[in-house]
Amino acid sequence: MAKLDENRLFPVDPSTRTMAADLYASVRDLPIVSPHGHTDPRWYAENAPFPDPAQLFVTPDHYVFRMLFSQGVSLDDLGVLRADGTRVETDGRKIWRLFAENYYLLRGTPSRMWLDHSFQQVFGLDERFGPDTADRFYDHISECLAQPEFRPRALFERFGIEVITTTESPLDDLRWHRMIRDSGWPGRVITAYRPDPVVDPEFEGFAGNVEKFGEIAGTDATTWEGYLQAHRIRRAYFKEFGATSSDHGHATARTENLPLSEAVALFEKALAGTCTPNEADTFRGHMLTEMARMSIDDGLVLQIHPGAARNHSAPMMALHGRDKGFDIPTRTDYVTALKPLLDAVGTDPRLSVILFTLDETAFSRELAPLAGVYPSLRLGPAWWFFDSPEGMRRFRETTTETAGFYNTVGFNDDTRAFCSIPARHDVARRVDSAYLATLVSTGRLAEDEAYEVAQDLSYRLVKKAYKL
Amino acid sequence: MAKLDENRLFPVDPSTRTMAADLYASVRDLPIVSPHGHTDPRWYAENAPFPDPAQLFVTPDHYVFRMLFSQGVSLDDLGVLRADGTRVETDGRKIWRLFAENYYLLRGTPSRMWLDHSFQQVFGLDERFGPDTADRFYDHISECLAQPEFRPRALFERFGIEVITTTESPLDDLRWHRMIRDSGWPGRVITAYRPDPVVDPEFEGFAGNVEKFGEIAGTDATTWEGYLQAHRIRRAYFKEFGATSSDHGHATARTENLPLSEAVALFEKALAGTCTPNEADTFRGHMLTEMARMSIDDGLVLQIHPGAARNHSAPMMALHGRDKGFDIPTRTDYVTALKPLLDAVGTDPRLSVILFTLDETAFSRELAPLAGVYPSLRLGPAWWFFDSPEGMRRFRETTTETAGFYNTVGFNDDTRAFCSIPARHDVARRVDSAYLATLVSTGRLAEDEAYEVAQDLSYRLVKKAYKL
Amino acid sequence: MAKLDENRLFPVDPSTRTMAADLYASVRDLPIVSPHGHTDPRWYAENAPFPDPAQLFVTPDHYVFRMLFSQGVSLDDLGVLRADGTRVETDGRKIWRLFAENYYLLRGTPSRMWLDHSFQQVFGLDERFGPDTADRFYDHISECLAQPEFRPRALFERFGIEVITTTESPLDDLRWHRMIRDSGWPGRVITAYRPDPVVDPEFEGFAGNVEKFGEIAGTDATTWEGYLQAHRIRRAYFKEFGATSSDHGHATARTENLPLSEAVALFEKALAGTCTPNEADTFRGHMLTEMARMSIDDGLVLQIHPGAARNHSAPMMALHGRDKGFDIPTRTDYVTALKPLLDAVGTDPRLSVILFTLDETAFSRELAPLAGVYPSLRLGPAWWFFDSPEGMRRFRETTTETAGFYNTVGFNDDTRAFCSIPARHDVARRVDSAYLATLVSTGRLAEDEAYEVAQDLSYRLVKKAYKL
Repeated sequence: MAKLDENRLFPVDPSTRTMAADLYASVRDLPIVSPHGHTDPRWYAENAPFPDPAQLFVTPDHYVFRMLFSQGVSLDDLGVLRADGTRVETDGRKIWRLFAENYYLLRGTPSRMWLDHSFQQVFGLDERFGPDTADRFYDHISECLAQPEFRPRALFERFGIEVITTTESPLDDLRWHRMIRDSGWPGRVITAYRPDPVVDPEFEGFAGNVEKFGEIAGTDATTWEGYLQAHRIRRAYFKEFGATSSDHGHATARTENLPLSEAVALFEKALAGTCTPNEADTFRGHMLTEMARMSIDDGLVLQIHPGAARNHSAPMMALHGRDKGFDIPTRTDYVTALKPLLDAVGTDPRLSVILFTLDETAFSRELAPLAGVYPSLRLGPAWWFFDSPEGMRRFRETTTETAGFYNTVGFNDDTRAFCSIPARHDVARRVDSAYLATLVSTGRLAEDEAYEVAQDLSYRLVKKAYKL
Repeated sequence: MAKLDENRLFPVDPSTRTMAADLYASVRDLPIVSPHGHTDPRWYAENAPFPDPAQLFVTPDHYVFRMLFSQGVSLDDLGVLRADGTRVETDGRKIWRLFAENYYLLRGTPSRMWLDHSFQQVFGLDERFGPDTADRFYDHISECLAQPEFRPRALFERFGIEVITTTESPLDDLRWHRMIRDSGWPGRVITAYRPDPVVDPEFEGFAGNVEKFGEIAGTDATTWEGYLQAHRIRRAYFKEFGATSSDHGHATARTENLPLSEAVALFEKALAGTCTPNEADTFRGHMLTEMARMSIDDGLVLQIHPGAARNHSAPMMALHGRDKGFDIPTRTDYVTALKPLLDAVGTDPRLSVILFTLDETAFSRELAPLAGVYPSLRLGPAWWFFDSPEGMRRFRETTTETAGFYNTVGFNDDTRAFCSIPARHDVARRVDSAYLATLVSTGRLAEDEAYEVAQDLSYRLVKKAYKL
Repeated sequence: MAKLDENRLFPVDPSTRTMAADLYASVRDLPIVSPHGHTDPRWYAENAPFPDPAQLFVTPDHYVFRMLFSQGVSLDDLGVLRADGTRVETDGRKIWRLFAENYYLLRGTPSRMWLDHSFQQVFGLDERFGPDTADRFYDHISECLAQPEFRPRALFERFGIEVITTTESPLDDLRWHRMIRDSGWPGRVITAYRPDPVVDPEFEGFAGNVEKFGEIAGTDATTWEGYLQAHRIRRAYFKEFGATSSDHGHATARTENLPLSEAVALFEKALAGTCTPNEADTFRGHMLTEMARMSIDDGLVLQIHPGAARNHSAPMMALHGRDKGFDIPTRTDYVTALKPLLDAVGTDPRLSVILFTLDETAFSRELAPLAGVYPSLRLGPAWWFFDSPEGMRRFRETTTETAGFYNTVGFNDDTRAFCSIPARHDVARRVDSAYLATLVSTGRLAEDEAYEVAQDLSYRLVKKAYKL
């Protein structure tokens, strides 16, 4: 694979492949709409050069370093941050060579495709990456990063990003977003409302967070009504910085719709730090329904990202902290879990809830049937471990027949890895083109309809679903 | 897709496609055996014309109207019945146009295939359906429906239906079945015994139902022995109207084999209306084993259809009642659940139990291993949300290697949508032909065996499994 | 299928098929490494002829006789052993004819492929097996079995087996392994440490087993420290007979890491026979962590084979005993279950744990994410009901993108059916070649890399993972 295969991810049958390639050609150059991700707004605000290749491609990418760790490479040797904020190995070139020696471990993974795509399309490197070429890649990428056309805003423009969303806590002052706005740069970088620190009684410093939350909002958030009002105020503030959505990463999809007195009592327990684990979960579940009610009023789209057992390894959490590859999916129930919210507000056409899953078995069994009837529900794309060719194929095969295309919302990249954004959207457009071509070849969709749906999946549905 | 693609659902590889087409040609014109469904026996009894196109294709088909509802179309505007028996919109043409405007939502779904097939094969309409052609379709179908050759009996014959089964409660007097029999029409329409109203303590009016049940049967069904005897009597009566099977749609696959005293005590609690939810479930589970015992005596095949959380939306249930698209599959356990019944009677070769699922994960993990060893167990086909090309393909791929072909029972259409019956059987025959052709192409089955298995899957297995 | 198709299991697209065939050709003749199975060491020790064809192919193979039983053939008529050690039918030819009459039931199953492969490749029979050829096959195989070149050691050599592992209890004296070693025969047959009888408080005769265990080891195994010491001693003894692994077939993947006092207390309850079911399960779970600690010291690889509900049918267990086809997979959780062991020792690079599953849903959701980050974890191949073309394909499709190839361990045949060993490895090599060819055709892997990975999957990874 010295060069990327132009027909990658298309069906192998020649005539179906041709049709897929034609469909893909019709969407390849559409702008990128990235409604959910974790790029750092500071990049676009300061527009400083990215540091060395290792810090661009290795140390922040848990897809990459967890795979090397799984084969015995130490995170310290890869320069991955420790929980105390230090790094053991800081020599970028040394890290890069270690990465190159172990690059073969990524064979068959999407990370390999994203990296090869980034090397070739972003940096013009079309040789095979590996131990023999490691230094050449390192030098070339380093040189590029020093050029103005590789600064964040230039790449943003070159990638064809129409709009990108970052994720911030209500306690965030959105200073980088303000700085972007004030800069006059026309790139559209917007925020999303992620209230975990003030919604989850088990979050570090919950009571203090709520107090600070009230201060920022100008209400007394330690009373239930003031607390809800603080949410309304901060949501409105986030909307000033473009927000069109909120995001919620609870461990489960549990929702509740408690009577007022119970909600207030739980809130007081949460502030007092006396919630049992189940009470904390009940409170989080109730807050999803409160958020849904606010969504009906202010129009923010509600995203639910459940199902990860976070920080699975206690010793690794102690040593290296969060987001180090130890978030493991678990079985997730949606049918029972979502019923309280859906009974309360689920048939209100003003509400829009986007559901994600890390449990693929839910697609055909629960999520497609739910999204195929509730007007408030839409299905987020194949996510995280399933942001991959096979994951995307299975997503279409297990959702389309019951929920159709129009209860799905296009593609989310959900990434911190800036250079992988075009690669990820490219994979999605290729896999969807392959799927559509297969439907046409097997008489399940007319060719002209396939072209229309390809536009929908690549561009129109995401703008509509996220109100962008 | 102005016209149906003659090669639809066949593999795309040319030589495998040719083999699939040849296999399909060998089964395409076999009679339809429809052993489980929900067509109305009154149609065949009275042989009255079907009403307008909207009432034929839209208002009774929850596959169709739930998809439109999921995108914000109101059920009232589609003329869907309210729980109080009224309809808000009654103008068939208006409903039809709304349906046509939203027809694109069905892209990629089996409903789209069934509808296109019905339009073309039943009504000779081979243009694309949509807003531009809505009126023409409406007028043409309306004219057809006024003709004698579009009355139920004529369509039954034209569809090549050898036998069709409807589903009735033990409280039903089978008047339509009697009328069919008395009419001298040779079409074979038989009933199936579905005792939910007198077996489920949580069914509306359970105690009254049991009392009425006894009256009809001529026993005192409020005593345990009289109750069992009433079942035996009604099963015998159903057999007079052709019944070869009973059907049970419990929420789970739970079975029990209680000591007599416990069964009697639960029955009395059920009549008194004092069962806890768990006791009600225990009783239902025990009754499956009682039904299995009766099956050994009278030969009725026992069908278990578990796994739907029925009427998921409380407000929609209140407004529109049952069967409006709000039945959502849930995880279903079979291994533990079926053990009591199987320990009691599962190795008796006179017993025949057909298992269905809405949880596809059970196919390879539980159902194929169970059916691959217990002589009483057979696997029903891909059901409901999985009555689809991908669902059927996954069914074969996840069951054949462990349970083989001969522990499966051919195809069930399970539908209320009369015109879709030939389309659904056609899809099944195509998908099975594609699967068999793929086995031959990959050296897993000899070509002559594939032709034999194709006959089995399309015609012979269903007749044998349902004793038809 | 008079003869095996040379291109069986390859993709149907011609150019991808050619690539798969070339990849397969590069690994077809590699030695067989069989690190986990259930062949009888006595065969290799005594090197006696195998008995008649029925006893070779039918009565010991639960894949075969359960399928016939599922269609009403009695186990007695197939000569399957009863729990009391007797056989009802002992006429091999009669059993063989019954098998032949029902051979069609195996269409589409891996057993059919293995049997056809064995008939053709081992016995040179390339006609179709069935009622017409039953006697000819019987006579021919009988004649072969009387020849020296069909004795176990000769077949072992002809099959190209480099090393094969059997499984023994710590209570086993390894006499057959000693006899093999003393014979001077160079075939490498090694043992594996399977301590269920002395680790599972619910095993028949647990307390007596532990006592005997101590006697054999020369320690007092009725004290906690003596018990652990006995394990260390017997593991060392097993290593003398080549053991490189231990094996654990618990019903679940539960692990525990108890404080010493709790472990001791549970052990004493276990010896006293007073454990509740949950306490027995806790003890088994704790012993996995103890075994892992010993593995760090002595290097034995730890295999976990969870997820079967054993002996599902109580009446069949009473009549025919264990291993008669009534082991049914159940849902298996790994994320919570493995956490105690993983928190204790999971990031120690000296530890190697190989995980198996009978619940395919765990592959993409739990097992690939776990193996893709923990350095101690590797994924065993598709197992038992999934030791099949579709099972293997799904294994690769659901694990590679997250765990890569290098967290998997090649193929295990796990069989008692000696003649099926080459057939099973052949299927695995074909399916992996097909998968790799598809990755190349779709631009996901370079061709030269595919050849390298093919070697890894067929030969190198298994040797490395099992330290062979």
